[in-house]
Amino acid sequence: MQRIDQKTKPLGALGQLETVAAQLALIQSQGRSEATTQIEIHQPTVLVFAGDHGIADEGVSIAPSAVTQQMVLNFLAGGAAVNCFCRANQVAMKVIDCGILMPVESDHQDFVMQRLGERTANLAQQPAMTADQVEQGLEYGRRITRQVIESGSNLVMFGEMGIANTSSAAALLAALSALPVEQCVGLGTGISAQQYQKKCQLVAQGVSRCERADPKAALAQVGGFEIVQMVGAFLEACEQRTPVLVDGFIVTVAAYIATLLQPECRDYMLFAHRSHESGHKAVLELLQAQPLLDLDLRLGEGTGAVLAVPLLRAAAEFYNSMASFAEAGVTV
Amino acid sequence: MQRIDQKTKPLGALGQLETVAAQLALIQSQGRSEATTQIEIHQPTVLVFAGDHGIADEGVSIAPSAVTQQMVLNFLAGGAAVNCFCRANQVAMKVIDCGILMPVESDHQDFVMQRLGERTANLAQQPAMTADQVEQGLEYGRRITRQVIESGSNLVMFGEMGIANTSSAAALLAALSALPVEQCVGLGTGISAQQYQKKCQLVAQGVSRCERADPKAALAQVGGFEIVQMVGAFLEACEQRTPVLVDGFIVTVAAYIATLLQPECRDYMLFAHRSHESGHKAVLELLQAQPLLDLDLRLGEGTGAVLAVPLLRAAAEFYNSMASFAEAGVTV
Repeated sequence: MQRIDQKTKPLGALGQLETVAAQLALIQSQGRSEATTQIEIHQPTVLVFAGDHGIADEGVSIAPSAVTQQMVLNFLAGGAAVNCFCRANQVAMKVIDCGILMPVESDHQDFVMQRLGERTANLAQQPAMTADQVEQGLEYGRRITRQVIESGSNLVMFGEMGIANTSSAAALLAALSALPVEQCVGLGTGISAQQYQKKCQLVAQGVSRCERADPKAALAQVGGFEIVQMVGAFLEACEQRTPVLVDGFIVTVAAYIATLLQPECRDYMLFAHRSHESGHKAVLELLQAQPLLDLDLRLGEGTGAVLAVPLLRAAAEFYNSMASFAEAGVTV
Repeated sequence: MQRIDQKTKPLGALGQLETVAAQLALIQSQGRSEATTQIEIHQPTVLVFAGDHGIADEGVSIAPSAVTQQMVLNFLAGGAAVNCFCRANQVAMKVIDCGILMPVESDHQDFVMQRLGERTANLAQQPAMTADQVEQGLEYGRRITRQVIESGSNLVMFGEMGIANTSSAAALLAALSALPVEQCVGLGTGISAQQYQKKCQLVAQGVSRCERADPKAALAQVGGFEIVQMVGAFLEACEQRTPVLVDGFIVTVAAYIATLLQPECRDYMLFAHRSHESGHKAVLELLQAQPLLDLDLRLGEGTGAVLAVPLLRAAAEFYNSMASFAEAGVTV
């Protein structure tokens, strides 16, 4: 991009930040006759989608489903990692109950109730949800994203919380790509080798019921309430021409599914980090994504995305206010 | 670290941020009977050391020495990349003239004059500076660092500007390690293959005059005015028990030299980024360093260090205010 190449630095010397600036500028230049001279980032907001999974009963995770609710309460009390990173980086946050086993009663202003049910059915044994729940979930995800953008955010992130949701994400990835189950299933937040074998087998059972080319059918068979809402959220961000900073494995699988439904979604995605969940590398490759951070994170909650926000602000600042060679009188 | 392991997250799930938090907590817990419960980051400051190099006349860089002065003026006017990142990340900055070919006259409050001469001699042909200049440079670097810390900064960064200074850094690295010159010399900000061959040859000439085990003698033979002052700056930060967020290749070579003079310096170093300058990988390995960012940066100026500051703030915030399992009532 010409504006970036005229800045007082060797060509390309700001590496991935130049790519970020160019993408943000392109998005914010839509509908203009020439490229914008100011990238603006207003009210970056992370939406944390929480949901429970029937497959948790099979022991595929290190923690019981009760922890999903406990962590939702932790989010609302401001005590989780994602809260800390939001405070450090001036990012707003909303928590969405997409269907957790034990609902919470809260009138917290950042709590949103969009339950699709108590939790999904056990995807290893039967469809996780109905086709109607898929449609309702997509609409719920769209709705909260539209609200956040209409209230002034022009950069959104999605995070997730849901015990056993790496099983659902792995199953969706295996079902919709040509990848073997073993490449899609990872160790989650830290299971044993034996649990891993079992997890692969259970995921494979769910995948065997899916048809490869149908994202909505796969969501019904092996999806999660929080995952389907995130797919809707990506679709809406695209419709609203709003960039999304994509978090780790589960969110990236939702991003991938959104691109299958609407390829244009990819243009609005920036990728925050590379986690150590094994399927993440695979889905990043499918999306031809180069994440900004590689910090060995494996927490979810949107933590990686929130951590990357300052890099977008830095990219915007150099795009907006760094001197050109001509302005600075630098000879080249 | 126990405090970190009790936070509401799987063990180790925040990856490198946990390492950062533990190191900062360890530094700030010195002299206490138990680990601090609050990591504090005050007035993070980047000191940009600028100097010119006689070897520039050999055509080892894409730009002439005049650009060093032009960039110093750009720093003072706020138009360079490092200024933009300082603004985006609330980092203070000072610019130090360590000996640039064309001095600038400025009463800018953030400009510091600590000239060791007009520029170094051509290291390919003769000693770059005298032993007295080395000692004076170390003292200058110590002085400005002490002043910044005494005025309230408890996190410092060093950046550099100096046409041809990758040649000096490569020569220092080759002279003081067992590494071949070709592994230490890189493409700088973008030279041709032919210039690269010449650069290797010129660097090797300088290295041939150095004795391996003597850092100060190597600084005199092949050092740079900005590099020697940065070595002093690292030594002083260690003496003041103040963490340093280490930038790219040239700064990391200065860090390495400081550890040769005073091994305890290593305890105060955090590493901001991995640049694509070939010698950087080598010197990071010598320091057993795991940088936080890998964004394909190759600009210098301290840009990588300033970009990493928000990650330290995020690490401090989770260390300080993230709930423990007990506090949040999360069952594990």
